[in-house]
Amino acid sequence: MREGSVRQGVHPRYPLIEDKVQAGIMAHIRAEAGPVSRARLNEALNSSRGKITAEVRRLIEAGLLVEEGFADSEGGRRSSLLGIPYSAGMIAAIDIGATSIDVALTRLGSELVAHRGVPTDVRDGPRPVIDRVKALLAELLEERMARAQDVLAIGVGVPGPVEHASGRLTVPPIMPGWDQFPMREAFAGEYVAPVFVDNDVNIMALGEHWGGVAKGVDDIIFVKIGTGIGSGIIVGGRLHRGAQGCAGDFGHICVNPDGPLCLCGNTGCLEAMAAAPAIVLEAERCAREGESQPLMALLQEKGELSMKDVGESARRGDYCALTVIRKSGKLIGQTLAAAVNVLNPSMIVIGGGVSRLGNALLAEIRSAVYQRSLPLATRNLPIVMSELDDVAGVVGASEMAAKGVLSFADR
Amino acid sequence: MREGSVRQGVHPRYPLIEDKVQAGIMAHIRAEAGPVSRARLNEALNSSRGKITAEVRRLIEAGLLVEEGFADSEGGRRSSLLGIPYSAGMIAAIDIGATSIDVALTRLGSELVAHRGVPTDVRDGPRPVIDRVKALLAELLEERMARAQDVLAIGVGVPGPVEHASGRLTVPPIMPGWDQFPMREAFAGEYVAPVFVDNDVNIMALGEHWGGVAKGVDDIIFVKIGTGIGSGIIVGGRLHRGAQGCAGDFGHICVNPDGPLCLCGNTGCLEAMAAAPAIVLEAERCAREGESQPLMALLQEKGELSMKDVGESARRGDYCALTVIRKSGKLIGQTLAAAVNVLNPSMIVIGGGVSRLGNALLAEIRSAVYQRSLPLATRNLPIVMSELDDVAGVVGASEMAAKGVLSFADR
Repeated sequence: MREGSVRQGVHPRYPLIEDKVQAGIMAHIRAEAGPVSRARLNEALNSSRGKITAEVRRLIEAGLLVEEGFADSEGGRRSSLLGIPYSAGMIAAIDIGATSIDVALTRLGSELVAHRGVPTDVRDGPRPVIDRVKALLAELLEERMARAQDVLAIGVGVPGPVEHASGRLTVPPIMPGWDQFPMREAFAGEYVAPVFVDNDVNIMALGEHWGGVAKGVDDIIFVKIGTGIGSGIIVGGRLHRGAQGCAGDFGHICVNPDGPLCLCGNTGCLEAMAAAPAIVLEAERCAREGESQPLMALLQEKGELSMKDVGESARRGDYCALTVIRKSGKLIGQTLAAAVNVLNPSMIVIGGGVSRLGNALLAEIRSAVYQRSLPLATRNLPIVMSELDDVAGVVGASEMAAKGVLSFADR
Repeated sequence: MREGSVRQGVHPRYPLIEDKVQAGIMAHIRAEAGPVSRARLNEALNSSRGKITAEVRRLIEAGLLVEEGFADSEGGRRSSLLGIPYSAGMIAAIDIGATSIDVALTRLGSELVAHRGVPTDVRDGPRPVIDRVKALLAELLEERMARAQDVLAIGVGVPGPVEHASGRLTVPPIMPGWDQFPMREAFAGEYVAPVFVDNDVNIMALGEHWGGVAKGVDDIIFVKIGTGIGSGIIVGGRLHRGAQGCAGDFGHICVNPDGPLCLCGNTGCLEAMAAAPAIVLEAERCAREGESQPLMALLQEKGELSMKDVGESARRGDYCALTVIRKSGKLIGQTLAAAVNVLNPSMIVIGGGVSRLGNALLAEIRSAVYQRSLPLATRNLPIVMSELDDVAGVVGASEMAAKGVLSFADR
């Protein structure tokens, strides 16, 4: 079975990894984000020195590793440093949002080398959106003087539920026309790279865990608050997808059975009461009823209000705008408190458009969680804003795809 | 370091396992719950045939494995069967509840060989309760003609929060006098075996997962409904304890901010509104106000009502008793729906005293969960009663302790 270094698959270089130890070596070097000495590899991996030496040699032959000088010697023979060369290839990372798409290229070694985002309405349907994604990707590749076959893997995040195993979308409520869309096949013409798909919140959670504020924190809840509300849950360093892949469906927890009707068909879901549309609606009501002079002026001027209007009014001290934001924060915090009681995470990360409302929102979320959860569970519980913000999605999509092609056990 | 078969520790035979492959062999044979052929072991374990043969030999020398005849041959050499002998030793499993203690002996191979339960009030404090536990354990050992040193490990479940790493109880609300009680040291005089401690709900979840209704189901929520309400969460086959070990604290999720005061200091916790005391209180109110003839008669006769009274009245068709039970089930189901949205489990198991109220309760819990959770998450979500019932705790405590002494990675 074994000939030379790697087995030949569909992709001229895929599968890249054919052995658990190879996967362990690549994972370790990627996590260290820099060249690693052989001595360090031997320490870190639970395998014999001989096996590690042999697999490192195979990975060098396959072009996935390169020797990059020597480690400082502490007596004895100097140990050479191993890194992932530029020539190993790139990952295409794609984050499709409700109103924008972000496309990025990352090195297999994990740095972001190119990124571009453009406004796009996901409701335009799959064909125009995917065409635009592909055009952006082609542009980025051209700029880096790379070809389609240099792409080792493609990671895609979408704003709806995904059957992780097949990569198909399943009845995405805000994505009309995308039901059962086969994302993997969509890239098959131009790219031979395997395609990995997950929902946008899961990839954002992965992004913050890989390279953001939650780096090194292995039990987190990432909450995205925007047009909808969702969460990505990392348990023991791994994404918790749940039995049907819909774990973290935070926005459809009921906060008030007598509340407004939600898109999902139930009443009083958190999303229907605390996400961006609810905030804007309540601010517009305040404006119409004259409770806030500044909001009223803005509404008269523009005919409608946006999240940005509400946020800026709050920052300028408008009491109504602040109250609307706080009300949303309180509901989110109370619901989050239940999730904290169930999961007892080490960190909560807040991201998404509404999170840019800033301190008023965060303070209210914190106070509700700290009041409503067990003292033991919140004793060391940081509740913080996303650090990667706009790029959390592409960083996470890249990480998902890199893990996909470089792991052995998960295939 | 390696001399003969096993390293010598404090226990004449502890640590039993000094190698990952040894741990893998023991785990596989225990999980199969019967003798396993060497051929099957070679298939199941990710290790070389030579390594497995060597470690099997060491385990046989250490008395942890024994050859038990031969497997049916499919051509070639016959493969011998390996099992865990009686002489390998036993596990002491202890389940301390609010009002009872259960003590059991299990074989290392995992069958329950002796079990005894007696009513005991945990509020008597640690000394009398532990003395009674030790007396029961001594009785069971004597009956099996075994000695204290035949006990390889002790597993203890307690009705309160435990710091898993140290085995100490931390401010257990229903266990006055037990705060910081060092459970491990309590057995040190008579037993050299290591002691593993967790809260009662976690061990019940482990029990159902190891040998009950959730056998083979790797993502479950086990909900115990009794004097309190708690849950044990298994994610990917492993107990999810959370950052501070208090994951699954289901009873203190707020269901109504204007609800009654809870022992924890907050208002409207699920536990304060739906556990046994709330059910009995509401039934007594019905009785006093004459809403239910049978309940009124019972109250006059006995001066107070019990869970059993409410359950029997409901089974006889008393509308008030049924309504009280349904109200509790609805609140539990609504709260569980939030946990289902967050975790997307494969199964929910209901246990504990109140669960014996039976179908009326279960039906109401089901209907609330199915109504309130995403259709995708409940499409294949069985919500079932505990199968092990009374012995879920000791089965789980035994499993925790056996895993503790037979694993390598977790030490």
